[in-house]
Amino acid sequence: MHSISSPAVMHPLSLSASSRFLSHKLLIPSSFFSNFKTTHQGFHTNFTKVPTFIRNCTSPPVSAKPSSQIRWNRTKKSEPDKKLQALRELFSRPGIGIDAYIIPSQDAHQSEFIAECYMRRAYISGFTGSAGTVVVTKEKAALWTDGRYFLQAEKQLNSNWILMRAGNPGVPTTSEWLNDVLAPGAKVGVDPFLFSFDAAEELKEAIAKKNHKLVYLYNPNLVDEIWKGSRPMPPNKPIRVHELKYAGVDVASKLSFLRSELLDTCSSAIIVSMLDEIAWLLNLRGSDVPHSPVMYAYLIVEVDGAKLFVDNSKVTPEVLNHLENAGVALKPYDTILSEVESLAAKGAELWFDTSSVNAAIVNTYKSACDRHFEIHVSDRKGNLHNGSNDQSWGPSGVYRASPISLAKAVKNHAELEGMRNSHLRDAAALAQFWVWLEEEVDKEVKLTEVDVADKLLEFRSKQAGFIDTSFDTISGSGANGAIIHYKPEPESCSVVDPKKLFLLDSGAQYVDGTTDVTRTVHFGKPTAREKDCFTRVLQGHIALDQAVFPENTPGFVLDAFARSSLWKIGLDYRHGTGHGVGAALNVHEGPQSISFRYGNITPLQKGMIVSNEPGYYEDHAFGIRIENLLCVKEVDTPNRYGGIEYLGFEKLTYVPIQTKLVDLSLLSVAEVDWLNNYHVQVWEKAKKWRRKKSIDVSLSLTEKLVYESVDTVLVQSVFLINEAET
Amino acid sequence: MHSISSPAVMHPLSLSASSRFLSHKLLIPSSFFSNFKTTHQGFHTNFTKVPTFIRNCTSPPVSAKPSSQIRWNRTKKSEPDKKLQALRELFSRPGIGIDAYIIPSQDAHQSEFIAECYMRRAYISGFTGSAGTVVVTKEKAALWTDGRYFLQAEKQLNSNWILMRAGNPGVPTTSEWLNDVLAPGAKVGVDPFLFSFDAAEELKEAIAKKNHKLVYLYNPNLVDEIWKGSRPMPPNKPIRVHELKYAGVDVASKLSFLRSELLDTCSSAIIVSMLDEIAWLLNLRGSDVPHSPVMYAYLIVEVDGAKLFVDNSKVTPEVLNHLENAGVALKPYDTILSEVESLAAKGAELWFDTSSVNAAIVNTYKSACDRHFEIHVSDRKGNLHNGSNDQSWGPSGVYRASPISLAKAVKNHAELEGMRNSHLRDAAALAQFWVWLEEEVDKEVKLTEVDVADKLLEFRSKQAGFIDTSFDTISGSGANGAIIHYKPEPESCSVVDPKKLFLLDSGAQYVDGTTDVTRTVHFGKPTAREKDCFTRVLQGHIALDQAVFPENTPGFVLDAFARSSLWKIGLDYRHGTGHGVGAALNVHEGPQSISFRYGNITPLQKGMIVSNEPGYYEDHAFGIRIENLLCVKEVDTPNRYGGIEYLGFEKLTYVPIQTKLVDLSLLSVAEVDWLNNYHVQVWEKAKKWRRKKSIDVSLSLTEKLVYESVDTVLVQSVFLINEAET
Repeated sequence: MHSISSPAVMHPLSLSASSRFLSHKLLIPSSFFSNFKTTHQGFHTNFTKVPTFIRNCTSPPVSAKPSSQIRWNRTKKSEPDKKLQALRELFSRPGIGIDAYIIPSQDAHQSEFIAECYMRRAYISGFTGSAGTVVVTKEKAALWTDGRYFLQAEKQLNSNWILMRAGNPGVPTTSEWLNDVLAPGAKVGVDPFLFSFDAAEELKEAIAKKNHKLVYLYNPNLVDEIWKGSRPMPPNKPIRVHELKYAGVDVASKLSFLRSELLDTCSSAIIVSMLDEIAWLLNLRGSDVPHSPVMYAYLIVEVDGAKLFVDNSKVTPEVLNHLENAGVALKPYDTILSEVESLAAKGAELWFDTSSVNAAIVNTYKSACDRHFEIHVSDRKGNLHNGSNDQSWGPSGVYRASPISLAKAVKNHAELEGMRNSHLRDAAALAQFWVWLEEEVDKEVKLTEVDVADKLLEFRSKQAGFIDTSFDTISGSGANGAIIHYKPEPESCSVVDPKKLFLLDSGAQYVDGTTDVTRTVHFGKPTAREKDCFTRVLQGHIALDQAVFPENTPGFVLDAFARSSLWKIGLDYRHGTGHGVGAALNVHEGPQSISFRYGNITPLQKGMIVSNEPGYYEDHAFGIRIENLLCVKEVDTPNRYGGIEYLGFEKLTYVPIQTKLVDLSLLSVAEVDWLNNYHVQVWEKAKKWRRKKSIDVSLSLTEKLVYESVDTVLVQSVFLINEAET
Repeated sequence: MHSISSPAVMHPLSLSASSRFLSHKLLIPSSFFSNFKTTHQGFHTNFTKVPTFIRNCTSPPVSAKPSSQIRWNRTKKSEPDKKLQALRELFSRPGIGIDAYIIPSQDAHQSEFIAECYMRRAYISGFTGSAGTVVVTKEKAALWTDGRYFLQAEKQLNSNWILMRAGNPGVPTTSEWLNDVLAPGAKVGVDPFLFSFDAAEELKEAIAKKNHKLVYLYNPNLVDEIWKGSRPMPPNKPIRVHELKYAGVDVASKLSFLRSELLDTCSSAIIVSMLDEIAWLLNLRGSDVPHSPVMYAYLIVEVDGAKLFVDNSKVTPEVLNHLENAGVALKPYDTILSEVESLAAKGAELWFDTSSVNAAIVNTYKSACDRHFEIHVSDRKGNLHNGSNDQSWGPSGVYRASPISLAKAVKNHAELEGMRNSHLRDAAALAQFWVWLEEEVDKEVKLTEVDVADKLLEFRSKQAGFIDTSFDTISGSGANGAIIHYKPEPESCSVVDPKKLFLLDSGAQYVDGTTDVTRTVHFGKPTAREKDCFTRVLQGHIALDQAVFPENTPGFVLDAFARSSLWKIGLDYRHGTGHGVGAALNVHEGPQSISFRYGNITPLQKGMIVSNEPGYYEDHAFGIRIENLLCVKEVDTPNRYGGIEYLGFEKLTYVPIQTKLVDLSLLSVAEVDWLNNYHVQVWEKAKKWRRKKSIDVSLSLTEKLVYESVDTVLVQSVFLINEAET
C-alpha cells in the first residue's frame, strides 16, 4: 500500500486528558491523580423524558500539515469574559435552570485524543493544555489543571479566571470547591455525554454532601450553544477497511467471540463506546482525531445482529460492503440514545463497561427500564392479578469490564507481523533522521526542537504505509528534556544545544502498525553525571527487556527491575515503565501496564505489546528516557516449574542506543553483551535496507565492549527502505 | 545473663495453624489457603447472659527435653470412637442443643504455637499436624487438612473419620460440607474463644445460606468436658521481666504511645489479645508455649489505666513490681469477659482488631452495649422525656487494626543490638555444629535428621542467653529437603546421606534476640543440576540482600528480585521470600512481608526485621533454601530523589554459605564480590570468638573468586564464644 499523506487532523489544541493511560506522559504521582480525577464527574438526576441527541454532521475537509505550520493561534487570547457572559446567560434559560456548569476535557468516548469540535474546555477558557476541567458559576470561573500546565494556564487564562493548581496544598477539588462556593441545594449542570457513568456517580456523591443536585443537560451542550458558527465541524474523513492481512482475524470471528461473551453473562447486547474497541472489532480505521486511527461511532452488538452508529458521510461503498458482509447495520451517530431506549423497552439486558460508557447512555437505559418496568407491573396487576414477585421482572443491565479490551490487547500473528514490519520502516526513518541531525549539529546549523520534530515527520512520512504521528513528538533539549510531557512550540521552544542531552520521544501510525520510541543523545561530550544517570536508565531498560517471568504475572511485579539500578544511588522516575500499545491503533491502550502503581493486576499475556521506558529527569538540567516497544512471548525455558508457561519479551524497536553515554564501568558483562547483541540485531535487521552512506559500522558492532570504552557509531548509519514491504 | 536451660514447653503436638504468617513453612498457594481459611469460622448468636469463663489454673511443672526424648506417643492411636461418642452425647445436653460442633486448631489468641492443653483438635481426632479443623455432626466426623499432612492424617485418623483433603478438586470447605450434610436450619456449635471475630462473621454468612445458626458455647469447651482428668494443665511457668537494656523503651513510654492512639481514634480503651503484642508492650516474657516467649494473657489499656488478665501464679514479685510501676493492675485471666461487660456498661468505646480478637470478647461487648443502650433509652424515655435522637447514644466500638503490630515491628536501637548480639552467638553455635557434622559424616557415622537437629540444640543451648528453639528444626536430607514443612520424627526420619543435599532451617530464642537461619550443604560432590539450582537461589538471595528502594515500598515489590534468576530457567518456589521476626519474640510476626502475594501493602520501614529466604524444591530429589535475617536500614545514597529516604538491608545472620555448591560461571563479578565480602564479614565478626581448631581460612576468604572455582573452607572453621556478652 502506498503512503497515505497524513489524512489525520493534527491540531494545535491537542487535549489528551485521559486518566485511563498513566504512561510516561504523566509526571504526577497517582495520589494526585485520584484527587484530580474527582473533578471529572457527573450526577444522575431523575428525568422522565430523554431529549434527542443532535449533532451537526456536515464536516469540513481537514488536511494534515507539518507541525510547524499548524501551531497557529497558540497564544491567541480569546475573549473569555464575553464567552463567560454568554454561558451564564444560558444558566437561567427555561429548561436549564442551573447555578454552575462543569466543562471537562473529554469527548463522549473517553478518548485520549479528541476532535477539535469537542475541545469545549479549551474554547471556553482559552487554556489549551491536554488536561483540565472548568467550572463556571454565576459569579466565578475556575480551571483545574496539574503541575505540567501551571505556567501555560497562567499565560492563557485572562483575569476573569481562577487557576486551580491541582495537587498543590490547600487547593480544593472541583466538588469541594462547588460545595464551598454554592449555597446548599444548588443545581450543577453537566453534559452527561462527557462523563463516564462511574465518574458521574462519584461526583454525585461528592456534591450531595452539600445537597447539590446534578442536572443532566442532554442537548445542546452549553458551550456548543455559544460557540455556534465558529465551532469547527465534526470530522468526516472517510473510514477505511483495515485489511485482513493486517487484522489477522475477520469481523465475523470477532463478533462471534463477543456473542459468546454475551451468552456467558446473560446479556442481550453490549454497548461499545471506546473508539479503538470499535475500530478493532470491525477491522475499520478512521481519521477523526489526531494520532489515533479511529472514527467517532458507537456500536451495539446483539446476539443476532449489530448496529454501528456513525455518520453516513464517512462510510465509503467499500466500508458499507464490508459491514454488510459482517451483518452490521448502519445507524446515524446521534440515534444511539433512542436505540438504547428502544432496546430497554424490549426488555434487553444491556452490558455496559461503566468506566468508559458515558452517563447519558447508561442513565437513558436505566430510566427507560424503570419506566417500562413500571408500565408492565401495572399492566400485570390490572390484567393478570399475578401474585408473583414483580420486583424480579424487567432488565436491570450487566455492569462489567469490556471483554474487547483484553481481546484487543492480545495480538494475533498478523498484527504482530504488522508491528514488526512497521517498526523496521520506522527504524529506517529514525536512522536517516539521526544522521541528518548529527550532521546539521556538526555544521553548527541552529535547529529548534520544533524544526527537529518536523524533520523527523518528513523522514517518517516517506516510509510506506505512513499515516500520522502516534502522539505529539516530545523533542526536548537540555532542561526541556526534564519536562516529561514537554511539547515544543514554535514561538517558545529552544534551539537544540549540542552541549546538552537531547531527548526525543516520538511515534507513528502506519497502515500495519503503531510505533513509540525514545532515544536520548548527546552531540558533544556528556558529563560524568549524565553518563551515570543514562547508564542506570539503560540498566533498568535491559533488566526489564531480559526479564523472564511465570504466566499470570501482572506488570507491576516487573516494574522494580527497571528502577533498581537508579534506586541504588537514590534516583527514581515519577512515571510508569510501560503501557500497552495498539496494533495500528491507539499508542496507549489497556488493560495491561508495567507500573509502580499496583492497582492493575492484569497479567501480562503472550501477544501483548508493552513499552519499556525507564527514565530519569533532573529538574532544570536534563531528561533521559530509553524506550523500546516489546511483545510478550513465551520463553523456551529448560524447566517449566508448576507446569506453566514462562514468558519474556521480544523487541520490536530496532534503533541504536548512543553508547558514548554509557559508563561501561557500571555495566556487567551480561549488560555489555545485551548492548552489543542489540546493535548486532539492529544491523541484521538493517541488512534488508540499502545503505545510503558508506559508514563501516560492522567492526564496532561486533567488538565486545567489555571494560573498553568503545563507542559504536551505529547512530551515524543510514538505513533506507529498499522496497515497499507493506 | 547466664544461660537459661530451656524453660519452654517443647511438646510433640506442635500445632502451628497460623494463617497469619505465610512464610516458607507453607508450600500451598494462597488461593488454597483462602479456601482453607474459611474453615476457621464462627457465628454470632444473640445471647443475653454471658457465662463466666473458667479456666483451671493450677499447672504442673513442665521441663524442656531434647527433641529426641519428647517425641513420645507420636503415633499412639487414641480411641476416637469413644471420644466422638462422648462428644455427641453432649450435643443434646440442656443448654447446648446443637447438631454439629466445629473444633479448630486455634487457641483463644490466634497464636502460631499453642500450649498442649489447648490442642483440642489433636486430642479429639488423634491427628497431630499443625493445621486442621474438625467438624463433628451426630452421624459424621471429618477432619480438614492441607497437602502437607495428607499422609500423616491417613495414618493417625481411625475409620470413624472422614479425611478432607483440602485443596483437592471436589473437596468441600467445612461450611459447604455443613450446608450439605445438615438439614436446613441446623445449629452448629463453636467455642467463640477459638475464632477471631472476622472469621466467625465469615462462617456466619457461609452457613446462613442453608439457614443454619451458629451457637456460641462459652463454657465449657465440649472437648475439654470429655478430656477432663487427662487434659494437661494450662502452663504456669513464671513470667520474667524483659530487661530494659534489651527492650530499649520502657513500658510507660509504650503505654503513652498507645494512649495517644486511643485519643486519636476516640477510643476509651483497647483490648489486646495477641500474646506477642502483650509481651512487647509490657516488656515481659513468658514460657507458656513452645518456641514463642509469651504468656497467656489479655490486656486492656485505658486512657487512665491498664489491666493485665493473667494467672496470678505466673506473676513473680519482680514482675508484680514491674507492672505496678507501669500502672498496670492484675486481674485473673478468666475475668476478661466480665471486664469487657462492665466497660460496655460504663459506655466505654473499646478498640478491637477483629482479625485477632476472638468472637467471645467482641460479641460480649456488642451485646452488652445493646443491652445497656436499650436500658438507658428506656430510662431516658421514662424519666427525662428527652426528645433527642436516642439512636446516637451509647458506645458502638472502634474496629481497626492494632497499632501495636507496627510499633512492635519497627525495632529500636536496643532491640537491634540484642538481635545483632544473639545472632553472633547463634553463628558460633552453628559453626561448631557444622564442623561437628562434617567430621561425623567424614567418619561415616550414621546420623539421622533428628540426631542432627538434637545436636544443633545441644550446641545452641550452650550459648549465653539461650532459651528455646524458635520453631521446630527442619532437618531434611535429599528428598526430605523438598518438603518445605518437613519435621523429622525419630521413628520415620532419614539418615543424613553424604551424597545428597542437606537442608537445615533452624532458629533459637535468646534472652536478647530471635534467630532463624537456613543453610543447604553437600558433603560430597554436588551434581551440576544441584549447583545450577543452588546458584540461582543464591543469586536471588544476593539480589534481595543488595536491594535499595525508596521509603514507602511494600515488601512484595522486592519479591521478584529473589526469583528472577530462577525464573530465567523456568523455576520458582511456592512460598514467600520474607517474613517479619520479633526481637526476642515470635519468629513470625507482621505486619510486613516480602511475598509474591501482593495483598500486603505495608511498607518496609527502617528498623523492621525480615527474613531473606528464597529456595527451590525438586520433588522427590532435593530442597534448597538460603536464609538470612535482615534489618531494614537507611542507605546513604548520593542522591535522594523526591526528598525521601532510600532504604536497604543490614545482615544479621553471619553463617558461611557453602561455596562448593556455587556454579561460578553463573555469577556476575558483583555477585562473587558479595559472596567474598560476606565471608570476610563472617570472619571479621568471628574475630571476637576464640578459634578452637586452627584451620587457616584467611587466605581463601580474602582471595577473590572471580572466574576461579575456589571453595572457601569457612564452613570448617569453628567459632566458640569467648565470653558471655549478654
